[in-house]
Amino acid sequence: MGLIIRGGTIVTATDYYQSDVRIEDEKIVAIGEGIGASDDEVIQVDGCYLFPGGVDAHTHFALPVGNTVTADDFCSGTKAAIMGGTTTIIDYATQFKGETLQEALANWHDKAQGNCYADYGFHMAITDWNHRIAQEIAWLPQEAGVSSIKLYMAYKNVLQVDDAILFQALQRSEECGVMVCLHCENGDIIHTLVNQFLDKGQTEPYYHHLSRPPLAEQEAVTRAIALAELAHATLYVVHLTCREALAVVADAKGRGVKVYAETCPQYLLLDESYYHDKSFNVAKYAISPPLRAKDNQEHLWNGLHHGTLDVVATDHCSFNFHGQKDAVTNDFSKIPNGMAGVENRLGVLYTYGVVPGKISLNEFVNRTATQPAKLFGMFPRKGTIAPGSDADIVVWNPATTSTITASKQYQNVDYTPYEGFKQIGNIEHVFLRGQHLVRCGKLCDGKQQGIYISRKPF
Amino acid sequence: MGLIIRGGTIVTATDYYQSDVRIEDEKIVAIGEGIGASDDEVIQVDGCYLFPGGVDAHTHFALPVGNTVTADDFCSGTKAAIMGGTTTIIDYATQFKGETLQEALANWHDKAQGNCYADYGFHMAITDWNHRIAQEIAWLPQEAGVSSIKLYMAYKNVLQVDDAILFQALQRSEECGVMVCLHCENGDIIHTLVNQFLDKGQTEPYYHHLSRPPLAEQEAVTRAIALAELAHATLYVVHLTCREALAVVADAKGRGVKVYAETCPQYLLLDESYYHDKSFNVAKYAISPPLRAKDNQEHLWNGLHHGTLDVVATDHCSFNFHGQKDAVTNDFSKIPNGMAGVENRLGVLYTYGVVPGKISLNEFVNRTATQPAKLFGMFPRKGTIAPGSDADIVVWNPATTSTITASKQYQNVDYTPYEGFKQIGNIEHVFLRGQHLVRCGKLCDGKQQGIYISRKPF
Amino acid sequence: MGLIIRGGTIVTATDYYQSDVRIEDEKIVAIGEGIGASDDEVIQVDGCYLFPGGVDAHTHFALPVGNTVTADDFCSGTKAAIMGGTTTIIDYATQFKGETLQEALANWHDKAQGNCYADYGFHMAITDWNHRIAQEIAWLPQEAGVSSIKLYMAYKNVLQVDDAILFQALQRSEECGVMVCLHCENGDIIHTLVNQFLDKGQTEPYYHHLSRPPLAEQEAVTRAIALAELAHATLYVVHLTCREALAVVADAKGRGVKVYAETCPQYLLLDESYYHDKSFNVAKYAISPPLRAKDNQEHLWNGLHHGTLDVVATDHCSFNFHGQKDAVTNDFSKIPNGMAGVENRLGVLYTYGVVPGKISLNEFVNRTATQPAKLFGMFPRKGTIAPGSDADIVVWNPATTSTITASKQYQNVDYTPYEGFKQIGNIEHVFLRGQHLVRCGKLCDGKQQGIYISRKPF
Amino acid sequence: MGLIIRGGTIVTATDYYQSDVRIEDEKIVAIGEGIGASDDEVIQVDGCYLFPGGVDAHTHFALPVGNTVTADDFCSGTKAAIMGGTTTIIDYATQFKGETLQEALANWHDKAQGNCYADYGFHMAITDWNHRIAQEIAWLPQEAGVSSIKLYMAYKNVLQVDDAILFQALQRSEECGVMVCLHCENGDIIHTLVNQFLDKGQTEPYYHHLSRPPLAEQEAVTRAIALAELAHATLYVVHLTCREALAVVADAKGRGVKVYAETCPQYLLLDESYYHDKSFNVAKYAISPPLRAKDNQEHLWNGLHHGTLDVVATDHCSFNFHGQKDAVTNDFSKIPNGMAGVENRLGVLYTYGVVPGKISLNEFVNRTATQPAKLFGMFPRKGTIAPGSDADIVVWNPATTSTITASKQYQNVDYTPYEGFKQIGNIEHVFLRGQHLVRCGKLCDGKQQGIYISRKPF
Repeated sequence: MGLIIRGGTIVTATDYYQSDVRIEDEKIVAIGEGIGASDDEVIQVDGCYLFPGGVDAHTHFALPVGNTVTADDFCSGTKAAIMGGTTTIIDYATQFKGETLQEALANWHDKAQGNCYADYGFHMAITDWNHRIAQEIAWLPQEAGVSSIKLYMAYKNVLQVDDAILFQALQRSEECGVMVCLHCENGDIIHTLVNQFLDKGQTEPYYHHLSRPPLAEQEAVTRAIALAELAHATLYVVHLTCREALAVVADAKGRGVKVYAETCPQYLLLDESYYHDKSFNVAKYAISPPLRAKDNQEHLWNGLHHGTLDVVATDHCSFNFHGQKDAVTNDFSKIPNGMAGVENRLGVLYTYGVVPGKISLNEFVNRTATQPAKLFGMFPRKGTIAPGSDADIVVWNPATTSTITASKQYQNVDYTPYEGFKQIGNIEHVFLRGQHLVRCGKLCDGKQQGIYISRKPF
Repeated sequence: MGLIIRGGTIVTATDYYQSDVRIEDEKIVAIGEGIGASDDEVIQVDGCYLFPGGVDAHTHFALPVGNTVTADDFCSGTKAAIMGGTTTIIDYATQFKGETLQEALANWHDKAQGNCYADYGFHMAITDWNHRIAQEIAWLPQEAGVSSIKLYMAYKNVLQVDDAILFQALQRSEECGVMVCLHCENGDIIHTLVNQFLDKGQTEPYYHHLSRPPLAEQEAVTRAIALAELAHATLYVVHLTCREALAVVADAKGRGVKVYAETCPQYLLLDESYYHDKSFNVAKYAISPPLRAKDNQEHLWNGLHHGTLDVVATDHCSFNFHGQKDAVTNDFSKIPNGMAGVENRLGVLYTYGVVPGKISLNEFVNRTATQPAKLFGMFPRKGTIAPGSDADIVVWNPATTSTITASKQYQNVDYTPYEGFKQIGNIEHVFLRGQHLVRCGKLCDGKQQGIYISRKPF
Repeated sequence: MGLIIRGGTIVTATDYYQSDVRIEDEKIVAIGEGIGASDDEVIQVDGCYLFPGGVDAHTHFALPVGNTVTADDFCSGTKAAIMGGTTTIIDYATQFKGETLQEALANWHDKAQGNCYADYGFHMAITDWNHRIAQEIAWLPQEAGVSSIKLYMAYKNVLQVDDAILFQALQRSEECGVMVCLHCENGDIIHTLVNQFLDKGQTEPYYHHLSRPPLAEQEAVTRAIALAELAHATLYVVHLTCREALAVVADAKGRGVKVYAETCPQYLLLDESYYHDKSFNVAKYAISPPLRAKDNQEHLWNGLHHGTLDVVATDHCSFNFHGQKDAVTNDFSKIPNGMAGVENRLGVLYTYGVVPGKISLNEFVNRTATQPAKLFGMFPRKGTIAPGSDADIVVWNPATTSTITASKQYQNVDYTPYEGFKQIGNIEHVFLRGQHLVRCGKLCDGKQQGIYISRKPF
Repeated sequence: MGLIIRGGTIVTATDYYQSDVRIEDEKIVAIGEGIGASDDEVIQVDGCYLFPGGVDAHTHFALPVGNTVTADDFCSGTKAAIMGGTTTIIDYATQFKGETLQEALANWHDKAQGNCYADYGFHMAITDWNHRIAQEIAWLPQEAGVSSIKLYMAYKNVLQVDDAILFQALQRSEECGVMVCLHCENGDIIHTLVNQFLDKGQTEPYYHHLSRPPLAEQEAVTRAIALAELAHATLYVVHLTCREALAVVADAKGRGVKVYAETCPQYLLLDESYYHDKSFNVAKYAISPPLRAKDNQEHLWNGLHHGTLDVVATDHCSFNFHGQKDAVTNDFSKIPNGMAGVENRLGVLYTYGVVPGKISLNEFVNRTATQPAKLFGMFPRKGTIAPGSDADIVVWNPATTSTITASKQYQNVDYTPYEGFKQIGNIEHVFLRGQHLVRCGKLCDGKQQGIYISRKPF
């Protein structure tokens, strides 16, 4: 017995057509007319779009930061993901000082296993590079299903690596079929500016964004690309925010450097005017890189349209305003950086990108599902609607409107940066490997059947 | 009763998966497992790729040029197209001085109707712009199924338009949902250089390419983009050949100008060293723009990979070497410009692009079928393999090799520019709207069942 | 018996030092201490700067335009020049349809000879290019003392040349040691936009600048540079106004193209907000290219500082508001284009460039005197303060302030675009070849002793 | 009693004219005709050029490097300078670990005082930045006559500073009127590549240049400019070598960043083919940055012409081939980096720049004397020929030719990188503050009368 989704319009990164889809044993088995068996269950979805389940390539669930931990763990985080149409997340497993990669990954498997509503994979964020770790990189894609590592050019004295490590990591990763994800901000500039603001008593969260200027991001992206070019390696720039950095990526792609870039909904929708409120409320938007001047947004949308930007991910890294963000109020550098978004990615991209015509439906699917699945070694299992692929399908009803509010969200955090934003369209159904997790907008709770997705080498 | 193509690997601009395809009544009706009816014909194609039938957006069949006419008419041209895996061509119907667009289009319908093996559409090349024609533009997409016009910035005193006409045509086309295709070379520069060479007695075909320097192309592309930007219009640059022009397009896309660009296999595979033979044989390669220095090619391949270049078309415009190319041998400017290629596009792109990894299989499909179908208003009827689309399918066997030679070609011309080139892979079957036109590499001759494809407004 | 200027500070394009200057027989004969003869006249100028007499490389005196003629002829124009510290002007002698260059030049000599307060040279503006004229170009530098011609890319159907003529003129000029000065705006775009505005009844002078967008200038500059590069010729872009065009020039210089560029005080001081008054008063600022958005100004100043811009000239082309500018008030395209400025160049450049530190005193001298003298073949006779050079010296007192007003000007026109502008510093003395033309700010009237300066080939 | 130099042609950065020069009490007192006193000594120099004495802004005399010291000390180095037409050098005084700037400068004064043939100033190279040193920066221009410091982005673990220090040094220097000179190569890349080559047993000097790719320089220049821009500081890039870095500087100047750049004769004349000899002889050319591909040279010459490059200095840092360069022959990283050149700068620039027309005589003077004197606070005392300036004059006879060879040089080193190079022109006389140090090509030995030149703040 199979399942038929009938009457919807299938949207992939390329195609757009009305058709039935038949699912059996977790997989899509057929698309078209006359494909059903007599005992199939049929779900009628006239007027709806069928998108491939979203792939969010950038989350931080259950991540210890300073002496707190992110508000969302794998349970609440993946529940919110599913409710937002994201059926696969890739979380940044983090190797702390002294750990082997194997130990670090084991820790993250412990956090996730049995707790996830969505399928999940891991990147490996490395904070303690040394010769032993360099050797262990080969193990990641060969045995652990991990084909990407992450390094930081910011957070001096904490996470930041110097150029020698970055260069060697790029070389070694390329040998091993691993892609390097990189937080590109110049940590030395930021470290200096932060200290200078604090020394002058400028401690309000308002100063957070002034301590992380766009030039610090542009510089880091430029440097990272130079290092990748010399190393003949592949680079993935996470959370790119500004026109200056975008121009650098466009130029590098144009001359054949293997560089990919990601942006996030918050950089497409919100802007630095959110910091101009001098109250502590601004701490809600303390993220890194920070929100930028509004005129960057049209450049980012254009980048998504033309493919200079490859992926929209969320950098979901939630902290409660009360108790976490406001734990220290007289030093902006101590505010935990990050905010929620895994639940909102498809909704806001659709509403503010597709509806006004900034990106097409195909581009929407490509940036939120197909391209991340391809770059991170999960395609065609994830990221498309095609026979043989996992039956991860989002049924989207474009004929509704709603308002985003923290009071209704599944994200386990006490605010949303999109509070009061209108959303056009909503999720009617979500299928994860054929399991009907969301039905008519309602979660079938308790179904933590997400599994680990072993990813192929780059 | 339907038809099943079984055992192949379907490649679209996004997807890659093994599956059966079922065809009925000219359309693809289903893809997947268990989709057949008991009386379906089954064609087994294990080990083969299924590509969407190719769309060649740039041909010149039966085109009068000077006092001759191109060697291929719609019969031989579309036969060669089919044998090369191209199931749809878009030919440049040409309005000559004094004609209305309606008259011009009627002429082209007369040439094509009943003679075509492949489906066909028309662009409208305009050589006599005036107020009446400006009005008539609206008729093209509304009633004639034509959503693109073509103008020339070269061929001074013959086809060339000045910037005022070009600007107005861009403005008017945008109002009407029509895209402007443009031959971008500065005709004034070329005109001057040609006359200067001839005045000095430098009449050999060797001087053809020296009279059309890359800077003349770059200048024209730059100017065209400026005019399109001012007119808020959409521009399609035909046959882009060189890195300088490519950089201009990349920059324009990056700042949001609506510009698309096409290149051709000859610019990807051949280079200006072909002109260095001082014999008249060089006339075979007298095309405009001319072949360029070899180092341009990696830039063009990179452009196809990143999407700076949208389309690979052929600019098929064949003349026999004996009798046409050599009709006048003491004046290079009198050699009819152009060469054949509609039969070779997929083969050489696959062999010299996909096999060495310069472009992926998905990109190959996108540039040869999907993107031209989309840009020219034929998608999703043409350009993809999806339920509901026309059953235009090429079955490609990658396990064979052959050698290109004029003696075996279907193009009705006495040479091929790719003489002696190795080809990897070959066409096993071609289906046009379900009709099995090529079977095991053999043409089912006499089947001129190609129909006119009315295209949607841009 | 000589003349000593004592106690001032000499400023050249390189140097800055306090010293005496001794003049004899029209020439500077010595600089330094102890250089006088006992019978020398001594003029004490403590606290003042000594600048080389200004060279204004762009004036239009006594120029017929439509059915009127510019308000300033050579008498009033050069009187104003002298009062503004400009001791040499280069006027655009114009060849009208049917004339030989020899005839045209003779006409301009007739206008100037015996009427000039300042020394003068001529460029040759060519409006009727043909083979005979191409031959005659050689005569200009060899026998007529003219080493620059001018062509127009704007004014379609009137002055505009096509690219073939421009290209040939560049080639021919290079052979002959002649530099091509070029008005760079795309006349086809402008022609189209003008007609479209007028067709819609938008006839107010407000529409003048909308019909000449920056992109039309950028395009023309780009094209001109491409043509010059192909012709291996030397190009001088007159009145460059905007950042877009400036970037193109910077890029061309960077890759070694022989291109020079000029801007004018009006583009450095005034901006397009002057057009936002909907009254006809705006016609005062109807110049071509038009005034631009204010943010261009910092780019122009930076260009003067770094040498991307070589020269500041005035494009002095004055028309009275009453009787000329307002002769036709219901068609902005009929307003004579141009305005006065030869009297104000040094004053406003000093006040708004040197005083706020946008350019140095050396750069001020270089852009207003030295570089134009060098580019146009008059150096070292003109453009510097050095032994052997003509004793053209401006004594500038920086310790005064005044207000620019039409009521006090020597320019023979009923308004000034700088009405009410403050000026810091003023002219105390002007010497032309040792003649003391301005003494303590007062003109020694009646001294029309300006002579023709035969210029050297480029 | 004065001294008259008669009959020569004076060349400054702007001017070119024949004139007498009169010197009295170390200063130029007059220029022109009839300027002499009856008891003046007269030196006739018909047919010769008079250049301002050269200013070499980049030397390393008596510098300890590893466990050796540069071959030239202040005595031999400044003697060679004088013989090469350089009358002022600015040496890099170096603060070693633990020293105050005052101590470091005292050390350098000890090395120089009483030993110099040429006048001299100091930059302060800082290798141990800390809060105390940051405070001491203010002392440099205020009391010590030093208005520039130097930092290194290369030489990891030895001289290299991180971005935080560089950024703070830029901020602090700007406050104090100090310019930051910067060695721009990414030391982390180089450190990694060096170790990788050595690990593979690739120890020959051939690998020196492969360990320092142009991209490492481009990256560092880009980063330095970003830091300077953020700090609103002034940056001076020492020894720029390649087109990639040049393009970055051009772009930065174009957008108004306060950046200046220097190149050296070795990068203009020699190229990386010198490394292709696999013998140890290649060690002679082990300099940092290394020699580059030949096609960079036209870009550097063009940069000097247009002012993207401001200064030509030598980076004179000589080591004997026998005993120093070859002390260790099995590890290219241990070869002392540097070579001689202070004696050859004017000769080779004149011969290979001025004679073939790559730069003009004025530009030659500007890049070798005027602009370094201006940038480093010594103008107009040094760097020009004008009344009131120091009588530092080089009399250059352009009518001779010679061949450069180590056997005849004054530099105290056993080879010259320009061995066998032809030179056009030679030095007839050199005057330092009026002292006739070189007479008819012969040094008046024993005259170590060079004095310390206290420089003005930037």
